[in-house]
Amino acid sequence: MRVRTDGGEKDLRAVWYDGDRVQMIDQKILPGEFEIIGIEDHRTVAACISDMTIRGAPSIGAAAAYGMMLAAVNGEDLEQAASVLKSARPTANDLFYAVDHMMHSMSSGEDPVDSAEAYVDSIVKRCLAIGEHGASLISEGSGVMTHCNAGALAAVDVGTALAPIRAAWERGTDFFVYVSETRPRMQGMKLTAWELLNEGIPHSIIVDGASGHFMKHEVDLIITGADRIVSNGDLANKIGTFEKAVIAKELNIPFYVAAPLSTFDFSIASGDDIPIESRGEEEITRVEGLHLAPDGSPVLNPAFDVTPHHLVTKFITEKGLLAPGEISRIKEGKDGF
Amino acid sequence: MRVRTDGGEKDLRAVWYDGDRVQMIDQKILPGEFEIIGIEDHRTVAACISDMTIRGAPSIGAAAAYGMMLAAVNGEDLEQAASVLKSARPTANDLFYAVDHMMHSMSSGEDPVDSAEAYVDSIVKRCLAIGEHGASLISEGSGVMTHCNAGALAAVDVGTALAPIRAAWERGTDFFVYVSETRPRMQGMKLTAWELLNEGIPHSIIVDGASGHFMKHEVDLIITGADRIVSNGDLANKIGTFEKAVIAKELNIPFYVAAPLSTFDFSIASGDDIPIESRGEEEITRVEGLHLAPDGSPVLNPAFDVTPHHLVTKFITEKGLLAPGEISRIKEGKDGF
Repeated sequence: MRVRTDGGEKDLRAVWYDGDRVQMIDQKILPGEFEIIGIEDHRTVAACISDMTIRGAPSIGAAAAYGMMLAAVNGEDLEQAASVLKSARPTANDLFYAVDHMMHSMSSGEDPVDSAEAYVDSIVKRCLAIGEHGASLISEGSGVMTHCNAGALAAVDVGTALAPIRAAWERGTDFFVYVSETRPRMQGMKLTAWELLNEGIPHSIIVDGASGHFMKHEVDLIITGADRIVSNGDLANKIGTFEKAVIAKELNIPFYVAAPLSTFDFSIASGDDIPIESRGEEEITRVEGLHLAPDGSPVLNPAFDVTPHHLVTKFITEKGLLAPGEISRIKEGKDGF
Repeated sequence: MRVRTDGGEKDLRAVWYDGDRVQMIDQKILPGEFEIIGIEDHRTVAACISDMTIRGAPSIGAAAAYGMMLAAVNGEDLEQAASVLKSARPTANDLFYAVDHMMHSMSSGEDPVDSAEAYVDSIVKRCLAIGEHGASLISEGSGVMTHCNAGALAAVDVGTALAPIRAAWERGTDFFVYVSETRPRMQGMKLTAWELLNEGIPHSIIVDGASGHFMKHEVDLIITGADRIVSNGDLANKIGTFEKAVIAKELNIPFYVAAPLSTFDFSIASGDDIPIESRGEEEITRVEGLHLAPDGSPVLNPAFDVTPHHLVTKFITEKGLLAPGEISRIKEGKDGF
């Protein structure tokens, strides 16, 4: 992704290995500050996943792959490292997928560094393919809405939901992006807007509650990412996604979900069985360290919601577009999936 | 309303006249600070409406009535005062209704103070009646969702949406209120939660984007206020209301709108013609003085949205419950309306 800082313009990934340390952009302090953190052990990787220094399902997977690599390089117990990393967050499927992938490839004798780099490179390739498959959904003059950050920060590079947006922009299509701020942590306002600004893509930030208003008047399609997509096509994604999908149905706006195959979890039958992370009250009541709520008012803070498959128009994967009723083709390996 | 401060418990209105000054609770600084402001002229009343020291359609109407009273008491030009007050905010119908009412009553020779006090008392009586008509909609064990603040702060006392909630609680019904925080200004988290806490009514704060999640699982009915309800039953209310109404329809949850007759505007045919206030970017990008968005990312900030009448189950008015198709009875003065 293109990153513009005071020091000039750079091309960076959200997370990478410099041969010595795993480096990641600290996503907690963007866009006010820009800092890169160097990490030498898998426990710190797990802590950075838990506290959302790095977030977004594919980026969490990449960090976890590098975490397993560090554990191997440092000669640590790999089963224990896998357990530490897998318990960092509960909802994103890519975390478990990446750890299992690394365990499998390393136990097959692959070099840990080569294996992690191949895994992370494959995410970027998948995102580029998602962009190619999804770009044509965005027409000249389109209003495109996205939620949270499913951009390069969330997916190592390029992004999932932002992949078609980046690809359409590179093809010369002129369109406008509505960025819902995504309370409580404001990944839309802080991260997606920052990525779009760096790329020069026209956009505006709106509050989450204004999504319906703009969908009624100015939005032609919605593209979100996903943290986990299960057998029947139900999906977990950032809290607020379900609402947009319902309103899109009411207003006949297509609702697309962009995700690599690593986000699909065929071990779960329906969205009701996806574990939903509850996070702390202070994510909501404290903003930048200031307490806004009345002392004593309780808070409920689910980080994700579940969108039923019947509200999804198509999944945009690295292999092409799929309707919710067609995702068994992935499991069956049919038609190139 | 019951107000608990460090100095003990008091029974207060959002705005009142002490015989010398118009007094209002500063709603901008709640719940962190509690302060009462004394005002001696209508221009300051208009400024306090504009900057949302006082907000909520009926409270805006009450403040405007007191503003006209101050203009009369101070011997100012009433036409000019009416114009200054009416231009303070564009969407809430009660503002125009109150100013016109005061012009009419004072030109009929009524005492300005008596006239303003009667107007403001009538709001409180209307809210109490809304509470009586709406309380039976809330059953034992209900999950009730509200949005923004349509409480005593918004309606002098008691509230519109919070009137049935207060009345049901006084009748001994046990239920739970989901308070959506209501970005950008957080009137749900800051004001509604504060009112419910003062009354001891069980509740939790959620982010706006979590409304759909909780509606799917735990909410039995929604009650919101309204800033303006027009001839066909369409209504303007705080941004985010439309979304909840759409999701309520999808999930078969009744969606009630509590409002006194002063909020109905039969001069407008449909919601498309309601003027929607756009407010400044910094309401969204700055929280408590801290800038959160990337420098250079634009913002769109409509303060209200329009909910079409077909999504409304019933209006809860001081005269009783009305379906959207029945509101012509108000205009025609039929059946006690």
